Parts: sequence; C-alpha cells; structure tokens
Amino acid sequence: MTDLINRQIVLKSRPVGAPTESNFELIDSSVPEPSEGQFLARTIYLTVDPYMRGRMSGLKTYIDPQPVNAVMQGGTVSQVIKSRHGKFSEGDFLLGFDGWQEYAVSDGKGAQKLDPLKGSLSLALGVLGMPGLTAYSGLLDMGKPKAGETVVVSAAAGAVGSVVGQIAKIKGCRAVGFAGSAEKCQIVKKEFGFDACINYKTENLHDALRIACPQGIDVYFDNVAGDILDAVLQQINVGARIPLVGMISQYNAVEPPPGPNLLPVLIKRATIQGFIVSDHFNRMPEFLRDVSQWIKEGPLKYREHLVHGIDEAPRAFLGLFRGENVGKVIVQVSDDPHRLAS
Amino acid sequence: MTDLINRQIVLKSRPVGAPTESNFELIDSSVPEPSEGQFLARTIYLTVDPYMRGRMSGLKTYIDPQPVNAVMQGGTVSQVIKSRHGKFSEGDFLLGFDGWQEYAVSDGKGAQKLDPLKGSLSLALGVLGMPGLTAYSGLLDMGKPKAGETVVVSAAAGAVGSVVGQIAKIKGCRAVGFAGSAEKCQIVKKEFGFDACINYKTENLHDALRIACPQGIDVYFDNVAGDILDAVLQQINVGARIPLVGMISQYNAVEPPPGPNLLPVLIKRATIQGFIVSDHFNRMPEFLRDVSQWIKEGPLKYREHLVHGIDEAPRAFLGLFRGENVGKVIVQVSDDPHRLAS
Repeated sequence: MTDLINRQIVLKSRPVGAPTESNFELIDSSVPEPSEGQFLARTIYLTVDPYMRGRMSGLKTYIDPQPVNAVMQGGTVSQVIKSRHGKFSEGDFLLGFDGWQEYAVSDGKGAQKLDPLKGSLSLALGVLGMPGLTAYSGLLDMGKPKAGETVVVSAAAGAVGSVVGQIAKIKGCRAVGFAGSAEKCQIVKKEFGFDACINYKTENLHDALRIACPQGIDVYFDNVAGDILDAVLQQINVGARIPLVGMISQYNAVEPPPGPNLLPVLIKRATIQGFIVSDHFNRMPEFLRDVSQWIKEGPLKYREHLVHGIDEAPRAFLGLFRGENVGKVIVQVSDDPHRLAS
Repeated sequence: MTDLINRQIVLKSRPVGAPTESNFELIDSSVPEPSEGQFLARTIYLTVDPYMRGRMSGLKTYIDPQPVNAVMQGGTVSQVIKSRHGKFSEGDFLLGFDGWQEYAVSDGKGAQKLDPLKGSLSLALGVLGMPGLTAYSGLLDMGKPKAGETVVVSAAAGAVGSVVGQIAKIKGCRAVGFAGSAEKCQIVKKEFGFDACINYKTENLHDALRIACPQGIDVYFDNVAGDILDAVLQQINVGARIPLVGMISQYNAVEPPPGPNLLPVLIKRATIQGFIVSDHFNRMPEFLRDVSQWIKEGPLKYREHLVHGIDEAPRAFLGLFRGENVGKVIVQVSDDPHRLAS
C-alpha cells in the first residue's frame, strides 16, 4: 500500500430522468502498490462526455453499463509515477481509461503513450481523441460531403460539432450549425468559421434553416435528435446522408420520445445511419495525420473548457446537458508540467 | 373522331384523410382518331397501387401530383387497335401509362411491347413489373441480405411483400412477414413459403417478433411504417439494413404522425434508406431474367386479385388501404385474348 490518498467519484445511484449531483459520491481510498507487470499513474486530465449518461442507466447497449458503487469509468490522460511494467516507465504520459479518480494502478492494457512535445496532452481527450475521430469519421465516412454541398450539424459549439463544421469547410462545403445561445452562435461563426449558425432556443427552426440552407441540406450530422432532426428532414435534398451520432436531447428522457416522421427519408431517398466511434478506430492514423496538420496550418480551431479538481467532475458532466460550455469539457485533476499558463 | 365511347375515371376532388368513392367520377368521352405518329390502344389491364394516394394529395414529392379533373394516371397493359406509328402496329400488346380509361391515343413515348407468349400479360403490372422490381432491387440492392440472416417484411401478402420474402428464401435467409389476417398469414406461410407470419392486428408485435426472429432482425423491408417499424427497431441486429419503401399506414393521415424513436438505429449502427423504384430501372434486365426464371422453375409464386370493369377501379384502389386482397390487385378493363380461363 502506498501512503497516497486516492479521491474517486463513484456512481452512487442510477438516475431516473436528469442526473443530479446526488447520483455521485466523492470517496477517499488507498492506493495499492503496483505488482509485477503493473504501474501506478497519476491522473492529469479526465474527460466527461454525453455518452456516459447512457451507461449510467444500467441497460446493456453497445457497451456494458457503468456499475453502481464503482468508480465512474472514462478516458484519462495520466503520468506514470511508479512502474513495474516492461513497457511503461516512470514519467511516461499516457492516454488511458482510468476513470474519475486521482490515481490508478494498471496493467497497461489499452493504454497508449503520449508525446507531450507534440501538443497539449489534453487534446488526446478532445480534438485529437474520441470526439475528434467521431467528427472526422462520422462526417467523412458516413456523411461523404462533396464540395459545394451543405452540411448541417447540431451542438455546433461542442467538442464534436465544432470540428464537423470546420472539416466541412475544409472540404469545400457550406457549414451550418445549431447552438443554444447567441454567444455560442457568434463563436461558431467567428471562431469556427461556419457560414451560419441557428439559435435553436429562440429561432423558428424551419424559417431559419430555409434562410441558412438556400440549396437544401445534403448532410446532417446529428448530435441531438428531437425537434432539430425533424426540422432538418423537411429540407433535405435527394440522396441526403444523415449520420446519427448522438441524441443528447433525449438521454434524460424516462420514456423514449417519438422520433421524426420518416416520409421525407423515403421521398428523398436519404440514408440515416447510426454511428459509434469505436467501430472506426481503424481510421485513427489518417485522422491524426489530417487533424494535426489542419490544427498546425490553421484551418482547424478548437476550444477547451477546463474545470479544476476531481470534485468538480460531476458538475462538469451535468453541465453537458445544460449546454453550459463551448468546446471540449475537460477536468484537470492534477498538475500538467507541459501546460502553458492560460 | 372514332365512334368509340371511352369510359374514364377522373379525380374529382383531392381527399383529405381516407379517400372515398366520391373523390372519383366515371365519365364518358369520345375517342379521337390517332394522328400521324400516334396509335390508338384499348386498355386490357390497369393497375391500382398505394403510391397513387400520395399523388392525389396535390403535393409535389418525387413526381408531380395527379391533376384534378383529369384521368387518373397509372400503368396499363393495352393492345394497339389502330396505328399511324412506325414502331407500333395493330395487334401489338404494350405496357404503358395510359391511366384509368378504356382507350388512349399515344405517341408511344415510354411504351414497351409485350410478348403474350412469354406469360400472362397482366404480370407486367405485378410480379414482372414495378412491384416486382421494387421487391427485387429494394431487397437485394439496399437490404443486401446474406444467407442465414433474418429478413422481415410488412404487407407480406401484398404484391411487393410476397416477392420480398420469397427472394429472401431463395437467397438462403429466414423470411418473416406481417399480414393483417389469419387467412393471409396462412397464405404467406403455405403458399409463399415464409418461415413465419405475424398477424399485426391480433398479435403482440414485440412478443411475436421475438418468437419469429430468434436471431434478431438483419433486414427489414418496410412497406407500412408506423407501429410495425417501431417494434422491429427494438429487435434489430448490429448493422441492420432497413429499406424504407412504403408507408401505407400513414398515407391517409391528415397530419404526419410521429415516427419511431431512432435510438436503436444509433446503438445498432443500422441503416435506414429511402427507396423509390424509378431510381432503379437500370436493374430491369437482371430483374426480368432472375424473376422469370424463378417463376418458371418454381421457387417464386405470385397471386393476382383480378377485378373486372373500369367502374370498379376506384373501389379496388380503396381496398388497398383496407388490406382487402392478397397479391397484386389488377383491374381488367377489356378482354385479354391470351388469358386462360380461371
């Protein structure tokens, strides 16, 4: 046993409807010594993502549910502080899946080394990680945008949506976003370079779409489902592609709400296709090559919303459903020796 | 002017909700002499199909609406009785688009000669025509069934559905149908050879599907939308394909009803794709070759429901929405010299 104290967030109870802070508990536990073939790592960053809500419900979907009374699972960036593992040495930075806790002992399965000189370590949880790959592969492989087409994306100020619109622009498309405030819409247009952004909380969806998409809609990258999907379907072009990537508008619903009428899908011979990023890990090399280059050369911007301290993780997670933040929400749990002061 | 009297069915008013006989009118008109480059044909068979309901609403969809106070448009089999056309001679049998009338003068555009020795002429409106091509191309090109998979189809006793299930069987799949009566389900199983058929009017859709599809559902060929689509989505397998071909359950709705919740499409990475047969006419040669052979060699059966007299066309059309018939509904308007007495 080490003499470290490990603060951990556990799922205390499964939420019915919208989760609250009372579904989580902060506990202290001890940190075991790593055995032969293991290492001990200190968490630097952890990610909170909307998909975690589904796992909290206890239903088996495409992955096992998050167990109750166990540490919340999720991706992390950490640094090895003690190693009895052949491949990972003290000081190494890793992308792993250690969850919402300050320390973790691991056998290294699934962990990948990160090079801190190649860019901010936290990007491995955002624009250069799962959210970025989701945007890249969902748009390019399923959306198949062609230059001159119109690409619409919901949650456009978010970690995935902001990247979708920018890749659409890089590919020569018109990019139109949906976001939940005037301030977000400004950022989506000015910073992320979308051609238009619709405030779905205040604007008439149909009228606003008609103005923003004078040539109709060829690709709709759906992060939210609900009314926005319904409105988009009314204005799709023949052969439209609709990657169904997220449904954040309904993750807290107690009963699944009805979906959109699908007559436009028939009439326009459109394709709706479900997307889960783990099916697309084979695209990682091209994704990292392209997105790193776009970041370096300028056409792809990203934002991070950094929150500090393990105890803030539940609140940061709950904020995702209230649309509180712009860009990728990251919880910084301990010091990052390579981070520039911001 | 000839001295023939042409009985025609015109659309008198656009239906709101379910159409009734009062939306149609039977009128007598005269028959003009064909000019140079035209021919006069006598209608033998005309087809009534669910898609005609959409055209009666007056909305522009993928084809122009059916005009009011004009002859109901639709596919026909006819015989040339007088010709001043270089390509079509008196006595020729044709597949055309002359609509709900006893005679038509045509310039031959879009008409195709039929060989009466190759099989019953009426099949060109059914199993060897648009409904057959819809089943063939929708299932094979969009559904992409693999041997051992489970294919589900709604309206399984109908002109399209009955062919879908039989092609699924020919391709080595398990075929499961939905139909609206115990009698129809018997025909679907015994005559068309489906592995199972669910009476959607009396059975619990979820329980019945679970029993009929113990390995889940890989392909759902949807002719109806509504509750059946919703129930099917609960039991799709990863990578399921769902050609959206018809929505007969909602064609008479005044307001478009909500659709199914699409969460299963996301979780199972399924594909929903709209299908309109006119996009697939390039498949006609393979379709005619394969289906003719399957009919000749035995594994593909078809049924026709023949109705007699132009004045019966509206009633036959309305019957489609009440699920009154098994197989292809055809209106015989005049004598077919090649038809065997039945």
